[in-house]
Parts: sequence; C-alpha cells; structure tokens
Amino acid sequence: MAIITLTTDFGYKDHFVGTVKGAILSNLPEVTIVDISHAISPFNIQECAYILKNAYRSFPMGTVHVVGVDSEWSPENQHIVVQVDGHYFVSSNSGVISLITSEVKPEKIVEINLPNAESGSFPVLNIFVQVACHIARGGKLEVIGRNFDDLKELREFEPRIINNGKSISGNVIYIDNYGNVVTNIQKGLFEAYRNGRDYEIIARTTKIKKVHHSYNGIINYDLDRSQRMGPGDALALFNSAGYIELAIYKSDLNSVGGASSLLGLNYRDTVTINFL
Amino acid sequence: MAIITLTTDFGYKDHFVGTVKGAILSNLPEVTIVDISHAISPFNIQECAYILKNAYRSFPMGTVHVVGVDSEWSPENQHIVVQVDGHYFVSSNSGVISLITSEVKPEKIVEINLPNAESGSFPVLNIFVQVACHIARGGKLEVIGRNFDDLKELREFEPRIINNGKSISGNVIYIDNYGNVVTNIQKGLFEAYRNGRDYEIIARTTKIKKVHHSYNGIINYDLDRSQRMGPGDALALFNSAGYIELAIYKSDLNSVGGASSLLGLNYRDTVTINFL
Amino acid sequence: MAIITLTTDFGYKDHFVGTVKGAILSNLPEVTIVDISHAISPFNIQECAYILKNAYRSFPMGTVHVVGVDSEWSPENQHIVVQVDGHYFVSSNSGVISLITSEVKPEKIVEINLPNAESGSFPVLNIFVQVACHIARGGKLEVIGRNFDDLKELREFEPRIINNGKSISGNVIYIDNYGNVVTNIQKGLFEAYRNGRDYEIIARTTKIKKVHHSYNGIINYDLDRSQRMGPGDALALFNSAGYIELAIYKSDLNSVGGASSLLGLNYRDTVTINFL
Repeated sequence: MAIITLTTDFGYKDHFVGTVKGAILSNLPEVTIVDISHAISPFNIQECAYILKNAYRSFPMGTVHVVGVDSEWSPENQHIVVQVDGHYFVSSNSGVISLITSEVKPEKIVEINLPNAESGSFPVLNIFVQVACHIARGGKLEVIGRNFDDLKELREFEPRIINNGKSISGNVIYIDNYGNVVTNIQKGLFEAYRNGRDYEIIARTTKIKKVHHSYNGIINYDLDRSQRMGPGDALALFNSAGYIELAIYKSDLNSVGGASSLLGLNYRDTVTINFL
Repeated sequence: MAIITLTTDFGYKDHFVGTVKGAILSNLPEVTIVDISHAISPFNIQECAYILKNAYRSFPMGTVHVVGVDSEWSPENQHIVVQVDGHYFVSSNSGVISLITSEVKPEKIVEINLPNAESGSFPVLNIFVQVACHIARGGKLEVIGRNFDDLKELREFEPRIINNGKSISGNVIYIDNYGNVVTNIQKGLFEAYRNGRDYEIIARTTKIKKVHHSYNGIINYDLDRSQRMGPGDALALFNSAGYIELAIYKSDLNSVGGASSLLGLNYRDTVTINFL
Repeated sequence: MAIITLTTDFGYKDHFVGTVKGAILSNLPEVTIVDISHAISPFNIQECAYILKNAYRSFPMGTVHVVGVDSEWSPENQHIVVQVDGHYFVSSNSGVISLITSEVKPEKIVEINLPNAESGSFPVLNIFVQVACHIARGGKLEVIGRNFDDLKELREFEPRIINNGKSISGNVIYIDNYGNVVTNIQKGLFEAYRNGRDYEIIARTTKIKKVHHSYNGIINYDLDRSQRMGPGDALALFNSAGYIELAIYKSDLNSVGGASSLLGLNYRDTVTINFL
C-alpha cells in the first residue's frame, strides 16, 4: 500500500491538514497517510529539515513525503520533486532538501509543471496533493515536469575543529519536547577527532565529562538509590539520531524545566568539546 | 473504503479521541478515520463551523463527518444527522450545521433515536459512533430516526454594504495558525460591489490598497532583494477559502507575532473596505 | 486488520512519532496505527495510566498498545509484554500496567529479550516496534521472551472511608482538556457507602449537593432561560469513565477558565463527600 507523509507548519487546529487529507483520499482512496509533524515553527526550514531527516528513513522505500513549509511558488521558490535514497519528496525549492540530503545525492529532481493547476496561497492542496498521489500510484516523474538542476543549497552551521584539533566547536540545532538540547556534533566526527583522549563538554557554565548511549547511562544501578544520580541531573548522550545531545535526566518542561531552560541554552548557542 | 472524519473540542491529550477511534474500529474495522481538528476552542460553534466548512468539501462524496462540539443531548440540542452536498454530518442541533451549510440546502435531516443507548456525558462515544458507522456501512437514515425540521439557525456576522454602496463593513471571523486574520468578506461580494473602482482596506490603523491571490503577491521579484517587500510586511489576499484575509508575510506567532497581534485585530473586530 | 495504538510523552512536534510509525509500516504494511495520546506529561506514569485505562477497552480484542513513557530499559525497568483483558501492552515495567489493570489480573507477562537489538535511548523504535508488529501479526509471546513475575506495583491514592463511614475522602487524579477535575471516587464506591443518604461534596470552598449523569444535568429545561443554571456554574457528575468529576458548565480554559482554576483544585488535592 502506498504511503504519503505530511510535514508542515499548518498546526493542528486549522482546516489545512484535514482539507489536504480529504483531497488525498479523494484522489487515491487506498493510500496510507501519516503525519510526521504539523508543528514546525512557521517558515522554519532548519527545523523542518531536522525533523524530516530523522523520520523519513524509517518509512518503506517508495514513500512520498509532502513538505508543506514555505511552499508558495515564486520564481525563486520553484515546486520540485526530489527522488533520493529511495524516497520521494514533494516540496518547494526552499533549501530544505539540501539540509535533509546533505549526505546523499539526489537520484532525480524534476520541476513540477502541472497544466491547468493554479498554485495560489495553498500549494500543498492545489499542487502537491496531485503530484504526491501520482507518484504514490506509481506514476513517472517525467510526467510531472522537466529535470531541474538548480536545487537551492542551505547549510546548517557546521561544527568546526579549532585549537589545533584540541577542540570541536558546535552549535545547538534543535530543542526537543523534553527541552533536551541537540547539537550538530555527530558521533562520527567526535570519534574521528577524539583519538582515545579524555574530554569535557562545555555549554555555558555546565561541564560534562562523558557522553552516554542512553539517558540512564548516568545511573549506576549498583549503588543505593540515595547515592545515585537521578532526575534533574545533567548529562550528554549520543541521541537516537546520532548527535551529541545535552539532557536533564527525566526533565519535564511543564514543571521543573529541561536542559534548554536549566542550562540556559538556545538555538544556535555554542557547545564546545575540549579534548584533554 | 468508507471515511469518517472527527472534528471536536476534545484536545489532543485526553483519552476521548482514542476512545472514540477504538469504538469506531470495533464497530467497522475497515473504515478510514481522519482527524479534521480536535483543537476547536471548547463549545465554540463558530470556530468549529469555519474549520469544518473549509475542510469537508475536499473529502469524497459519502464521507461521514462527526462533530463533537457541544454535543450533549438536551430538549434544545437534539442529536441529528444531516445529509447535505453529498456528505453526512452527525452532530447535535447546536447551530453548527446552519453555519456550515449557509449556501446549500440540506437534502435530508433526521433526529437520532437509538433504542437502548444512553447519551450521557459522552454522546460522541455513546451515540455518534454507532450512527456514523451505520451510515459509513451504507445504512439508511430512516433506520436512525424520523425526519427533523427544526434545524437551529445561527448566523455569523454578515458583512454590510454601507455608505451608499461606497463601503463594505466586515468582521474578523477567524485567526489562523500563522496569526493571519480572516474576515467574513468573500471574493464574490467584494467583486460584485467593486465595479472596477480602486479601494482601500482599513483595519484599525492599517491601510491596504490591494488584495493579492497569494501571500507573496506583494513581492516584485524583478526588484533587487533589498528593495522588495518581505517578511514582516502586511498584506491582504483572497485566501484559499475565498475570504479576504489580512496577513503578515512569513509571520511566526512564536517569534515576532502575526497579523492579529501586530495589527491589533481580534475576533469580531471590524475591517472596512472603502471604494474610491 | 491488526491495530497498534501509541501512547507516549513524545509530543506532536518532534520526529519521534513519525519515525515510529514509519518503522511499524515498514515492518507490517497492513496495520492500522491509532494515536491515543502523545501529550502525556513527560515521565508521568499516573497520567499515562489514566488515559490508557480509559481508552484501551474501546478497541477490539487483540489490539496491541505500545506505551512510550519512561521506557528506557534498566535493570529496574525491564521491557515487558502484558496480555490482559484480551489486549496486549508493550511497555516498560514502570508501574503503568499495575495502574491500568488494578481491577483485572494479567493473563500472561513476558520479559522482552530480543537478540541483536540494542535498546539505547529510543526503545520504542528499537524494541517495541518489532515486538508490537510480531504480536499484531499473530506471533506468540513465548518467542519474545520468558515469563515474568516481577510486575512493578504502583498504587494511585485511594479514596478513604473516614468519620465512621460518614465521609469519603478522595483526591484529584486528572484535569482534562476543559479544566474539569476528575477525582478517584468511583460511582460504585460512592453508591456502596451512600445508603440513600443526602450528601455534600466539599472541594476547598465549593459545596455541591448532587452528582449528575451529564454536564447539563444541572439545567432545568422547564424553566425560562433567565432562571436556569448555565455556563460558568459548578457541578459534579459521574463522568464517562465512572469517576466523580467536578466541572464548570461549558467552561473554556482559553477564556474564563475551568473547574481547576476557578475552584482552585490541582492534582492530588482533597475532595470530600460527607453523607448527611
């Protein structure tokens, strides 16, 4: 069964998501529609890319991913379909694709050109639904439009190796539902430069000396409960997406706060790793 | 495959939505359930109508729309099924149907009368699920209850033609996820009275002289970027639902704010169009 | 068709839910996935239990319920599958099962032991998806792991009979989307001790003398509208889950507030019933 996913900044209240789903089901009754997120901050391409990048790979090959963030057509924001890594992305040329696929090269990109369709102010409904259903039905990209070779390149802040290889300087790229702070420092980079050295992670006034593989990696279950680390303690881990993340063990943003508020870290802030 | 949509004020946290979906799937395993919105402001019939009116038409004919806002049965709030425009609405007689269907006449209305079912405090679960599944299964309305001819009429504020046809006075009827402000002035009315004249739209201290067909209609892409309008600029457009909407280009409610906060416009506030 | 439900504290913005759904669909394309809630307060086992307890029974027998709250594996928080009441729960041994099933005895419990699977920081993706799909496919629990008999017992505050049977002292266990306040006093207990006596419910400074069966039970529709109780009035009812709930008629948390704010009642606060 074909799958179409939706990632948008439409929110959960307005009629936009429902309208799009109705149009998809009218066009292709047997499709499975999956919401990845409708809570992207409006027009935030970086956030959209982080979320979609970490979700799309778990879907089966051939899944069609509709990206409804900053999707109005303009001469500088064309509508495109990108086939990459066995998946299809129906999106505007906002730069989101370059952020999602920074490590894989698209197999094919076409610019959408639908006769008799007006994009208007709701291109996801007016254009993307038709295109996504065509692909989900097994249709060819050639029918949708011509090859396109002007993919907009956006680059996230990249971590920098500084101090003669003795430090990595990274940045906060995402803050999640628990207030945990995700940096752009990936495990591979960290390991490549570490060379077995000890290290400390510096984030404002917080210093952390170990990166765990799970949140409860900080807890020594051999100790008596009263002597253990626990809820409220700061830690670092390689998160499930492969990035170094700073977290508060069992934080709750609704009560005590999370790593973002407790450690004073916001989007783009610097996190440094010093090898000792 | 039959489709049942849900539009409620249940929110996304409580068990209500899950419980209703479980009951639908227990009753009719092969149905497709689509959430239109569960974030209607509690008991807000106008908001529910605006959202459902703009979503239902994109669904295939025969879709069953369950309306779970102010649905407790009372002698003054009967449970009804309305067949209109090829769709079925299972709702209370709260007035929502008259707002949704102000331009189309219902084909059939029945009052729900299920023997052996207690409505209680959760009528969507106890009554509407059973009725919706019956209809989705292709069952007749006659089985559900008798014809009903006492549909409650609610009317939204209507725009008024004032000043000898030189002005249209409308109101804000909805504020969307981007903070954009939707008025009750529809394109047809505007064009009918405009007669080729120039105009200005007055909303508090803001004056706008053009209604675009897309958000980026304000941008002249022939100009250099530094000379263009852009993020943060106010504009008017005919939105995808056909209403005149006041927007801030690429607004983000989480950061700078949207048209509602920046232009100081709230639900029910007046927006006037003066023809010059 | 097999059904897998999801109840988590992942929130609606991050990639977690989408990633899990993609993995489920990759594993078992024909499954129906239903969100019960992703808005559980982080790590809040009591809240998770209240929501899941009131939702799971409406699903068909054989449904698999994935519980993604506090699910990191530790020597004290094993991964388990519990077969109970005809349903399957895939969860950590966080205590949530004991709260959900306090009135029914599990038929079978196994401890999950998947060779070649690393739980890490995202066990719902790495472990629970595989297990849930195995069960949804009709697989045996024996394949997943060995019988487990160390189910963690958590107990919610229980109402107490005090004052020589003249009072029931209960607590607030949940506050819903409308701000309504749910107590732990169930209808059965109330009726068992009432013995036909009059009573008053005391919650801080509020005194209520009747428990209704629907929210509009406070309204006498024979009276003229101006003489009736109505929006803003406090009431008590047996809610759809069978608990005594304190509510404000047609409250809206976004405007005037709900029972929680207006009556000053928070989670765990005492609500007393005095029989007269």
